[in-house]
This record gives sequence, structure tokens and C-alpha cells, in this order.
Amino acid sequence: MSHIYTHGAHYPEAHQAGDKLAHYMSADFIALSDDLTVEEGRSTFLQQISDDYFPTYVFIVCGAMLRGALPIRALLQEENVAKPITSLMTSDLVHAAPDDTRHETARLIESRGMTLIPVTEHGRLVGCLAEKEIAHLLADEATEDAQRQGATLPLEKSYLEISPVGLWKKRALWLLLLFVAEAYTSSVIQHFEEALESAIALAFFIPLLIGTGGNSGTQITSTLVRAMALGEVRMADMGRVIRKEMTTALMIAVTLAAAGCLRAWMMGIGPEITLIVSLTLLCITLWSAVVSSVIPMVIKRVGIDPAVVSAPFIATLIDGTGLIIYFKIAQYFLGLS
Amino acid sequence: MSHIYTHGAHYPEAHQAGDKLAHYMSADFIALSDDLTVEEGRSTFLQQISDDYFPTYVFIVCGAMLRGALPIRALLQEENVAKPITSLMTSDLVHAAPDDTRHETARLIESRGMTLIPVTEHGRLVGCLAEKEIAHLLADEATEDAQRQGATLPLEKSYLEISPVGLWKKRALWLLLLFVAEAYTSSVIQHFEEALESAIALAFFIPLLIGTGGNSGTQITSTLVRAMALGEVRMADMGRVIRKEMTTALMIAVTLAAAGCLRAWMMGIGPEITLIVSLTLLCITLWSAVVSSVIPMVIKRVGIDPAVVSAPFIATLIDGTGLIIYFKIAQYFLGLS
Repeated sequence: MSHIYTHGAHYPEAHQAGDKLAHYMSADFIALSDDLTVEEGRSTFLQQISDDYFPTYVFIVCGAMLRGALPIRALLQEENVAKPITSLMTSDLVHAAPDDTRHETARLIESRGMTLIPVTEHGRLVGCLAEKEIAHLLADEATEDAQRQGATLPLEKSYLEISPVGLWKKRALWLLLLFVAEAYTSSVIQHFEEALESAIALAFFIPLLIGTGGNSGTQITSTLVRAMALGEVRMADMGRVIRKEMTTALMIAVTLAAAGCLRAWMMGIGPEITLIVSLTLLCITLWSAVVSSVIPMVIKRVGIDPAVVSAPFIATLIDGTGLIIYFKIAQYFLGLS
Repeated sequence: MSHIYTHGAHYPEAHQAGDKLAHYMSADFIALSDDLTVEEGRSTFLQQISDDYFPTYVFIVCGAMLRGALPIRALLQEENVAKPITSLMTSDLVHAAPDDTRHETARLIESRGMTLIPVTEHGRLVGCLAEKEIAHLLADEATEDAQRQGATLPLEKSYLEISPVGLWKKRALWLLLLFVAEAYTSSVIQHFEEALESAIALAFFIPLLIGTGGNSGTQITSTLVRAMALGEVRMADMGRVIRKEMTTALMIAVTLAAAGCLRAWMMGIGPEITLIVSLTLLCITLWSAVVSSVIPMVIKRVGIDPAVVSAPFIATLIDGTGLIIYFKIAQYFLGLS
């Protein structure tokens, strides 16, 4: 007796939200009853493999309860065909549940390098993730991360299917939050109005300074967030990451300060402003490196997916604090209080 | 007679650069000689499958020349075991070469949905990409895209292995290019110095306006670039993309202009500047949507990978042009020439 479960195909819609495992799992697996011999299992298997999918494993079940998995290789190569198939199976399987999220499953796959995950509900086998399903799930996770990196909520549909109102809903909230966060830059500049009036040339460099701070921070987070998503970088590596980023940032800062010096000289700005601009570039780059390497790790520590640390998020954070650095340095060198 | 090729393992180092197919292909495949019968092929196959890999296909070769591929299912299910195995094989295979780049192979896999790619050199089978290798290749491609999106050159090593000098090399060039591109924002503001002096409050909103333009543009490119990488959006969809983005941008622009109005009123800024700020938000958001939806498609058209259109790239482009929009609107409403 053998079972081919097709529950997955009829799995209740309510469970099939795009971020749940039920949405990804396949019903296209073969399960053999645990009372078969190797010979019976082999012939049942060969009758039942379908045209479009050749599995690497079959599942062994008792009724509908999952007992283990059996590599096809072992099933086909075993010479003592009278053995029970249970003698060849492994029961050391990591199960998942249909309601597990895609995100937690992706982290599980990446940390353990799994190629087969049975999906069970109260011990009953309801589906499975094999290589194809795993690849699909990981690709969707990468798409969601890419969208988060652009500070937009993940789309549930493909880009061409979603309506403009749908896109607006996904984008407006993040954009307004960033707007509110960025709004304090206006208060910062207003606060330093006196410095600005005494040297209007300070205004010329505002976009260049905060833009460069944002760019150097974005370089760090995009590399770091991806390395964390792949499990290359863990919480325990925090010290190493910060040391590495600080050393790199020092070299980057010197490079940019030199470029800033050259730029201010080309514009015919006086030596004081040139000094202020170069020094600010140096400080902003270092500050941006601290922020951009620590924040993704802290955010992960408190249990949030670091993929939310997007370029706009970093840019917004650097813009306001960078302005404070700029005007403080300016006040000092211009002899203002 | 059967062949198991292991050339891949000894493949010359010179060909194994990280972005070449030779780096990803597996030597762990089974090739059967084209003069075997189904029965001979089946027993040879069963002897040779190894512990850690169970293939979905075997290759059929004549000497070392690839002739076709044979699904394991067909090999094991065929009842007429005296048939030549060539009668079951398919020769409709897309080949790749060891020197093909990862990028072109990834696009091929994504556009044709392939799960098996033989790698040949002058017709000789030297390796293959099965599901595992394909997943590895696609994951590396996604990592490279993520790094490019952060405006850093792709790292060849894992994050923790690369030295600070290595990171500096990957980042400094892009950062300097962005710095040079961003530097013209200083000239723009200098050009409008008169307007700025007559209403210093204009300076308060510079980071907020250009930051918001950059953020709304980043939302668009990050979604669009990923959709293009997955093949969801093609050049032929350009009209649809632009219509969709323009409609969405109009809704976003109205939302942000209202927020800008509120913010300026909260700061106790006069009605003229409030009007200028709101109107600029409206125009910058629309402008940013045009730039961010057209540029990735144009860049793809001229044969460049759209993944280079990163958040910093868009932000830099919007910063300067956004400032021109801002000061032009200001000049008009402040009655300056």
C-alpha cells in the first residue's frame, strides 16, 4: 500500500498567504507506507514517479504520520530487497509547519544548508519543500529584501500586476515616515541660522556633505545586510565588523577630505570654509561608518530583520546628524558661539 | 562502457575566476556511453551514483562529446530494456561554455527556467549545472546586485575575509564618482546665492526636499531593478511602467505636498515659502519618478546591467536637478529675476 498525498493542492486558502510556508510547499512528493519491504517500495516508487519531477527522497509514513525519509539512492541500490524499508530511512529530519513564515524558513535553510524539508501539521505530512521549492522561496525572500532596501513595503503581486493605488499604499507610509524623520533637518539649519547668515557659502556644501555621508553609509549597510542575510556575518562578529569598518572608513575619509579640499579650492572659496568642508567630510564619513555598521546589528539583536535598514533610512539618519557636525565645526572655526 | 568525468575538479585555475561558469560547474555528473542498451545503462547508473548526490538526468556521450541527456525516470521506468539508450534521450539542450559569465548564465536561467545545463568546450562535456549549482549561482548574482545597489563594486570574497584595504578599493572609486557628480550641487546653490540671501529660510528645506526626492526615486528603482532582474519587466513594458509610475507618483506627490505644507506651517514660516516648499515637493516627486523609471530601462537598453542604478546614483541625480527646480520656483514666487 502506498500513499501519494495531494493535500497541498487543496490546502485551505486562508493558510496560503504569500509569506507562509503553505504557499511554497509542494504536494508533489511520494510517500511510502512503513510496512513495505525494499522490493515493494522500489516497484511502488517506480510506478509512481511522475513526468515532471524526479525526487531525491521519498517519505516513509505510518497512515498519514511522517516517520522518516529515505534517499532514492538507498532504495535503488540496496541488495537485500527483503529488508523493511524502515531499516534504510533516516528520521533525523527538521520539520516545518504550514504556518511558518517564509522569513524564518529562509533563515533555517541558510543556516543549516537543507535541501529537503517535510511540512507537517500535528505530525501529519501535508507537503514538502525540495530543491525547486527552496530556490523559489529564497528568490522571493531576496526580492522582498531588495524592496525593503528601497524603503518600500514588499509587494505581494508581481510588479506589472499591482495597481498604482496598490503601489501608493506600499510606498506612502515609509515615505511619510522618512519625511517626518528628515523634517528635523529644517530645524537644525534654522537653529544655526546665524552661522549661515554670517557665511552664506556654508549653504553651498550642504547637499554635497550630507549626500556623501549617506552614500558612504549605504555602501556599508548594503554589503553588511546581505552578508547577514546569508549568515556570513553573525552577532558574535560585531567587534570584527566594527574594527574592519572603522579602518576602512579612515582611509575613505582621508580620500574624501582631499577631494573636498580640491573642490572648495576650485570654487574659489576662502581657506576657512575649505578647512571646514574638508574636516566635516572627514568626520561625517567616520560617523556614517559607525552608524551604518552598528545599526543593522543592533536591529537584528532586537529581533527585527536588518533588511529594513535601507539606503533612505541611513541617508535620513546621516542628514540631520551630519548637519549638526557641519555647523558645530563651522561655529568653531568662524569664531561664533 | 561508461564514463564519469571529473575534469571539473582539475579544471585549470586560470578559468576559475568567480564570475565565470567554470567556478560554479560541478564535475559530479554521470555520463553514459551512447552504445549502451537501457538495461546496461540502468545497471551502470545504479553502480555509479554516489552518496551525496542523486541526479535527475544522466548525460549521453560519444567518447567525450555530448550527445544528449536522459531523464533518470525514463531510464528506470522503460519496460523494453533492450532498446538503445539513445532512443530515450533528448538532444534539445542549451549548452554553456566554461568561460560564460555568471551574469549571462543567470539571465539565461531566469528567462528559460532551466534546471540542467551541460557545460561544453568544443562539444566536449566538461561539467554541468544542476539545481544545486544553479541555486548557488543565482544566490551569488543576487548578492552582487545587492552590493551594486549600495554603489559598491561586488566583493569577490566573503565579507569577513576581505581586508579593509580591499573594501576601500571596492568603495572609493564609486564614492569619488558620486562625489564629483554631487559636487555640482554646490555650483547650483552658488548660482542662486541671491535668492538664498533674500530668503535665508529657503536653506532650511534643502535637505528635506532633495532627500524626499531621492527617497521616492529609490523606492521606484529598487522595485523596478529587481523586477527586471527576474525578467518580470521587459523593454516592451516600458510604456506600461511609465504610465503606472506616473499615476502612482501623482498620488505620492499630493500626499507629500500636504505633509510639506503642514511642516512649514509648524515652523512658523511665511505663506510664500510654504507655497514654494509644497510646490517643490510636488514637482520633485514627479520628476524623480520620471528619472527613476526611465533610467533603469534606458541603461538596460544600452546593454548595462540595471543593478548599477543604485540608491546613491538616483539620489545624486535628483539632488542637483531638484535644487534647480526649487530655486526656479522660489525665484518666480519671490519675484526675483
